[in-house]
Amino acid sequence: MANSDKYVYHFGNGKADGGGTMKDLLGGKGANLAEMTSIGLPVPPGFTITTEVCRYYYANGQTYPSTLDAQIQEGITNCENIMGYKFGDSENFPLLLSVRSGARESMPGMMDTVLNLGLNDQTVQALAKATGNERFAWDCYRRFFQMYGDVVLGVQKLEGEDEEPFETVIHKLKEERYHKDILDSDLNVDDIKDLVSQFKTLVKERTGHDFPTDPWEQLKGAIGAVFGSWMNDRAIVYRRKYHIPAEWGTAVNVQVMVYGNTGENSGSGVAFTRNPANGINEFYGEFLINAQGEDVVAGVRTPEPIAEMAAHLPEAFEQLLKVREILEKHYKNVQDIEFTIQDGKLFMLQTRNGKRTAAAALKIAADLVKEGLIDWKTGILYNPADQLEQLLAPIFDGKAVQSAVRVASGLPAGPGAASGKIYLNADRAEAAAANGERVLLVRLETSPEDLRGMIAADGILTCRGGVSSHAALVARQMGKVCICGASAIDVDYAARTITTGEKTYKEGDYLSIDGTSGIIYEGELLTAPSEIIAGLIHNDEAARTTEKFQNFVQLMDWCGQAAKLGVRTNADTPDQAAAAIAFGAQGIGLVRTEHMFFEGDRIDAVREMILAETLAEREKALAKLLPHQRGDFHGIFKALAGKPATIRLLDPPLHEFLPQSREQQEDLAKKLGLSADHVARRVTELHEANPMLGHRGCRLAISHPEIAEMQVRAIFEAAADCVKEGIEVHPEVMIPLVGFAREFELQSEIVRRIAALVMEEKGVSFEYKVGTMIEVPRGALAADKIAAQAEFFSFGTNDLTQTTLGVSRDDMGSFFGAYTEADIYPQNPFASIDTEGVGSLMKIATEKGRSVRPELKIGICGEHGGDPASVRFCHSLGLDYVSCSPYRVPVARLAAAQAAVAGN
Amino acid sequence: MANSDKYVYHFGNGKADGGGTMKDLLGGKGANLAEMTSIGLPVPPGFTITTEVCRYYYANGQTYPSTLDAQIQEGITNCENIMGYKFGDSENFPLLLSVRSGARESMPGMMDTVLNLGLNDQTVQALAKATGNERFAWDCYRRFFQMYGDVVLGVQKLEGEDEEPFETVIHKLKEERYHKDILDSDLNVDDIKDLVSQFKTLVKERTGHDFPTDPWEQLKGAIGAVFGSWMNDRAIVYRRKYHIPAEWGTAVNVQVMVYGNTGENSGSGVAFTRNPANGINEFYGEFLINAQGEDVVAGVRTPEPIAEMAAHLPEAFEQLLKVREILEKHYKNVQDIEFTIQDGKLFMLQTRNGKRTAAAALKIAADLVKEGLIDWKTGILYNPADQLEQLLAPIFDGKAVQSAVRVASGLPAGPGAASGKIYLNADRAEAAAANGERVLLVRLETSPEDLRGMIAADGILTCRGGVSSHAALVARQMGKVCICGASAIDVDYAARTITTGEKTYKEGDYLSIDGTSGIIYEGELLTAPSEIIAGLIHNDEAARTTEKFQNFVQLMDWCGQAAKLGVRTNADTPDQAAAAIAFGAQGIGLVRTEHMFFEGDRIDAVREMILAETLAEREKALAKLLPHQRGDFHGIFKALAGKPATIRLLDPPLHEFLPQSREQQEDLAKKLGLSADHVARRVTELHEANPMLGHRGCRLAISHPEIAEMQVRAIFEAAADCVKEGIEVHPEVMIPLVGFAREFELQSEIVRRIAALVMEEKGVSFEYKVGTMIEVPRGALAADKIAAQAEFFSFGTNDLTQTTLGVSRDDMGSFFGAYTEADIYPQNPFASIDTEGVGSLMKIATEKGRSVRPELKIGICGEHGGDPASVRFCHSLGLDYVSCSPYRVPVARLAAAQAAVAGN
Repeated sequence: MANSDKYVYHFGNGKADGGGTMKDLLGGKGANLAEMTSIGLPVPPGFTITTEVCRYYYANGQTYPSTLDAQIQEGITNCENIMGYKFGDSENFPLLLSVRSGARESMPGMMDTVLNLGLNDQTVQALAKATGNERFAWDCYRRFFQMYGDVVLGVQKLEGEDEEPFETVIHKLKEERYHKDILDSDLNVDDIKDLVSQFKTLVKERTGHDFPTDPWEQLKGAIGAVFGSWMNDRAIVYRRKYHIPAEWGTAVNVQVMVYGNTGENSGSGVAFTRNPANGINEFYGEFLINAQGEDVVAGVRTPEPIAEMAAHLPEAFEQLLKVREILEKHYKNVQDIEFTIQDGKLFMLQTRNGKRTAAAALKIAADLVKEGLIDWKTGILYNPADQLEQLLAPIFDGKAVQSAVRVASGLPAGPGAASGKIYLNADRAEAAAANGERVLLVRLETSPEDLRGMIAADGILTCRGGVSSHAALVARQMGKVCICGASAIDVDYAARTITTGEKTYKEGDYLSIDGTSGIIYEGELLTAPSEIIAGLIHNDEAARTTEKFQNFVQLMDWCGQAAKLGVRTNADTPDQAAAAIAFGAQGIGLVRTEHMFFEGDRIDAVREMILAETLAEREKALAKLLPHQRGDFHGIFKALAGKPATIRLLDPPLHEFLPQSREQQEDLAKKLGLSADHVARRVTELHEANPMLGHRGCRLAISHPEIAEMQVRAIFEAAADCVKEGIEVHPEVMIPLVGFAREFELQSEIVRRIAALVMEEKGVSFEYKVGTMIEVPRGALAADKIAAQAEFFSFGTNDLTQTTLGVSRDDMGSFFGAYTEADIYPQNPFASIDTEGVGSLMKIATEKGRSVRPELKIGICGEHGGDPASVRFCHSLGLDYVSCSPYRVPVARLAAAQAAVAGN
Repeated sequence: MANSDKYVYHFGNGKADGGGTMKDLLGGKGANLAEMTSIGLPVPPGFTITTEVCRYYYANGQTYPSTLDAQIQEGITNCENIMGYKFGDSENFPLLLSVRSGARESMPGMMDTVLNLGLNDQTVQALAKATGNERFAWDCYRRFFQMYGDVVLGVQKLEGEDEEPFETVIHKLKEERYHKDILDSDLNVDDIKDLVSQFKTLVKERTGHDFPTDPWEQLKGAIGAVFGSWMNDRAIVYRRKYHIPAEWGTAVNVQVMVYGNTGENSGSGVAFTRNPANGINEFYGEFLINAQGEDVVAGVRTPEPIAEMAAHLPEAFEQLLKVREILEKHYKNVQDIEFTIQDGKLFMLQTRNGKRTAAAALKIAADLVKEGLIDWKTGILYNPADQLEQLLAPIFDGKAVQSAVRVASGLPAGPGAASGKIYLNADRAEAAAANGERVLLVRLETSPEDLRGMIAADGILTCRGGVSSHAALVARQMGKVCICGASAIDVDYAARTITTGEKTYKEGDYLSIDGTSGIIYEGELLTAPSEIIAGLIHNDEAARTTEKFQNFVQLMDWCGQAAKLGVRTNADTPDQAAAAIAFGAQGIGLVRTEHMFFEGDRIDAVREMILAETLAEREKALAKLLPHQRGDFHGIFKALAGKPATIRLLDPPLHEFLPQSREQQEDLAKKLGLSADHVARRVTELHEANPMLGHRGCRLAISHPEIAEMQVRAIFEAAADCVKEGIEVHPEVMIPLVGFAREFELQSEIVRRIAALVMEEKGVSFEYKVGTMIEVPRGALAADKIAAQAEFFSFGTNDLTQTTLGVSRDDMGSFFGAYTEADIYPQNPFASIDTEGVGSLMKIATEKGRSVRPELKIGICGEHGGDPASVRFCHSLGLDYVSCSPYRVPVARLAAAQAAVAGN
């Protein structure tokens, strides 16, 4: 069989066809099952159907390669040989299977799973006989029925129903025979047989067909359902959020069942080799005696902390601690594992790199480096750049917390502070968030159906489930604040209220949750800066002694050593500049001069300038603005203390500065001694059909050179004054919206003329640069002509995205929803650079620009500068720097360092 | 001397360093003087200073190459040797020189000229002595003084002055001693000596320096002035209009003077070897006895028709007729010549290809092919594409002319019909035209200063000067209607009136001029279609028998044989389609479906659709539109009779269809049974900050697929009905504003689904295509992805220009003036494709698109489709077709054929 025809990879008995590096083909789970098998860990035998089959399945009208059936049968035979059981055996212990999805990247809770496959009315008897445990056998059968019915046969909650139909049957029986809160494990074998019987009727009613009894038919159905689940709504939503290509597909893992529910000497658990919430080096997880793994993660029964296992199952626990050590050493990373103990014997069902919060990532990376397991460059890679900002998020203010009313407490599952209005349902939470409300999603437990609500919420609170529950897992991954298992809280979905003790809170009431301590407070709480902000920006000495602060500073230091791409900041004031420098910014990449126009009474001078009828009047108004602008620039140069500052000349259309209402226009007219009609007429004259494409950027200064002259004079007078005061300056004057080389030529003539004039007047001399913003496609396409004169380029990726896509950011709201639904934009192009379109132009501009001026300095200054994917892209283009808002500087530095390390 | 150091090219005595092919280096005049010398025509000796010197001059701070002086001296020596005279000789006949500019392309009247250089108070005596004609010598001196004073010393009209200061001196003397209308030639030698004396005072007063007396100094000054004139305002305006790069530079031609003003056996003239106004094969030109060439072209004295020369100077005329024949045979084209007869001997001063009207070009090309001088492909090249539309311009309606009041008549110098308000000054004419008025510029005579006014005017009328005057020459070149030499008209610049007989017309009154007959009418006259329109569109049999019509049809036939690029039309109605097909369009390149939305009462259904709150309501409104759209498409398919039609789905934003005023909104609300507030709210909701970049194009149909479904159904139902009626159809459905492949995928799914449905319903089957408009830069950059699915591309160059340049056409008025002044746009990018920017994207899209689909059909459908330069560019990219408005089809066909011929 040619390798390209190999669709099934076996593992078991210490041998495996695949390995840990084959995630693309075998998925993460399959690759790790093979890897664990190879390194001698106890893994139940099985096989993986490759992701290639998934791609084939969708490319060929949901059919399979012709040789697949035979290969699956070979896989089953292999399992039968290892175990000594037979699939579908109705006499002896039957081989039972689990069927699980497993994509290249973990998609927790997204994909469907079927356990105990192979049971029917005959094999259940054989199982009962072989185990001598009739109740166990029937409970397996009941579970299989329920999962298969849901996942494969589609017997699911209908509109108007509050729970899964199988659960309804169970709840009804419990209430009729016992009471509603009795545990599944307290049902007797007759109860369970009755449930199975009722399930059969339910399936027949809902699907019109009998439940399939042939194990091979069951297997085929389950495999098809896993592949089918790759395209279900939850999976699509998840992939969209995490930019996972649909082409990857999922693998299917078929594995011999082991049972944690054969009695008190059995159990199941999930664990992390270190604490994924805070990074502490402690074995962290939960287990349930006499239960299957699903019981642990589903959050239905609250499991026991992993440490308790030492008392209940001491031998297995010893073995598990050894596995923990082997896995961390082997994978050199924190592992997230699933295991089952069947009759005292440990089986490993899964291992993968453990998702962790940003805080945990920071500590784990620092500790692993200290322990010598990884080097510092790998330490950089272990910190997820897109979550780093969580470390800077505010925490609850100490004083506010002292006087706050405690509502209850739960398990701290996602650190941080979140206040918001509570919502008890994902749809309403999503709607409220879309309305601009800050939202806490409160649920008994969460399930994949709640995903949209979790994305929308600032914080998540559940009453059931532990730190490995769905809620906790997803919250950590998304960086959401989360408390789970707050069992003192009762949730009434129908009344839309939650109750604890005597207090009742209804939907829309404010609560506050501290995901670091696990405490829930009433109302909205004041917040305080995180230790990192306190230490870096406010010079709080106590904060600087914290481990978190020190690990952060160490990480930034590593980034500084590794990165090739520089990071600057967009700042319009000295304060912003100072904050960014504290975060390690290497200068300012964008000063928007017009941001200062609205301060104090200078807007009057701006308006006077715009309303001027003659050059002389306009120059008079500009003269009033000059000292203000000079003062602003002086402050910025001082704050930079020798770091470079890229200062953009006036960019927005003039009408943005004029009042639009008649009343304001009358006020303005009075102030300036003009008629209100004159003002109104000028506003009308300046109105534009498409201001984004109108009279702005350098076009303003080409029709009114005196505006540029004033601004340039302000820059150079301020710089000259600084030089006289002994402050080093590196002004870089940036001409906006250049598309034609001649535009740049005309504007740079003004800059160089005024600069020379001011230096002569002030009797000082210093270096400066003149460059341009590349923000219309033509600027990129004519980059060689422009670079013949310009000393630097800065991509204005916001406007470049608007013009390249032909999409106005202000107007895209009307179709963005439909576009997201239809999967048209791989990601929001205003959040992350559209590499195919905008990126192509950036590449063209970089190549053309450097072809005529190899030392051309190139950066970006759009909002994309703080987006990790965009930073990676800028690194790959060989840009000199990105510029982003001050608080995104650490993220950009980390992303830049990661790109450099990954590129080595 | 290395060739690259050769800056001076000699000619004379039958030998020349240069030749006719060296126009880039020697300019047109210099190359032709060399060529004429080589083929044995009588040319006064001289030399040409190359255009390279001009480039050097501007690149090196207006200085010259170090070896230039020596080379010029060598040139003078060569002339002295041929003539036997000495430069600056104050004893014998002195060598006198003309110094003229000469660029690669002729720029009539743009550049400055100095004649009789070498005269001073001493050499004038020598000249008088040698010629025995004191009056002649002093008249030469006077002329030299006047030209040199103006051109080199800058003694020119000041603000507030009505005429050149030298002319004022002359007019004053004439009025004091004789009367104002006495001719220059009637002044006696003392008069002239007094004039020279007064000129000296004038120069001293105006410049502060004495007039230079050293001939070498004079020569240096004149050469510098010619190079300097390359950058004067007139030259810059002219180059901007004709897209001549400033880098070309001008050459300087220094040539030995010959004199047409030595007496009654001398004269000067200009002539065309055929009639440049109508193309008739007749010797066409004018001459003046006892005059220099400048007297002929300046329009001061009205010259005599060339045929009269046979009587006055029979031998020279015979010789001239031979030269005419030699030149046409040698150059294989109509020549525009200048000559001087000195004492009965003919000298050729210039030859160049004669500028001609479109009508003349049509006939001349046809005749030259018939005569076997050129082949038909060259015949195509002889028709200037950018003037072809003149042939389609209306002529005055016969009936209107019969009842019209004749004002006067003059020489027909630019054929066609023009009505407009008269203006007597270029500035006022330009301002009025900018105001939207149709303008006739009326002047005694025109000069280069009038150029802006001539560009702005629809027609030009002068009272002095013949068919070779500045006015006539420029008008023919620009395709302006022109009558010159209408001597019955008196112009009073001060009163701003013109008078003929008893009638007076003031500025702003309407006149009408027929540039074909030379007759001037009162008021605004009705027009009728040209012979070509009458013949092709109205099937007027009489028109079809005219030579003009037949030459036109023959030209279009040649174009059909030569062109590689197809021509389609933009048409929204069957009438437009029929007209375009009569002009030879090969199909429709763009049907804008929304153009039909405003017809009849269907706008109500459109508005109902937009105001609908639910899908069901919207579908109801769309169902009302369906039969209208189907009917429109049926008519178009029928008119096309099997030719392809590219139909674009709805493109503009919906708000364009809603009424904006409260009153109209109330009317609409009443009609649709809605509240006015509802309508107003919807209008507000749909308002966009930048509609150009908003919810339009395929974005509309992605959020509202039902709109596309209706339009596609209408197209395919109409097509199916046609097929049933036996009419061949080739629908090409075009998806607008595609930037992402997925957009196209979603929309083409709708098209293919509905098409299959309709074909099944109607029981017919036919081929069709689905393609897209490339009109945002991203579409071009992702062309490979899009072409994987799209069967054709059509560049929407209007929007592609707006997005690539980041310029809104609606808003550019506020800065376009400043941009033109500052020479930023090489041409209006909305008139002619910006090849550097937009063109780069077209190239990228074409290459990427064809890399995945080599047979991809590619065209353009912006307004650039009818612009000759843009058509040439499209040919060079290898596009399949251009699509333009129906009346531009012949222009596009001609430009396409020329590109193909020139490329061979």
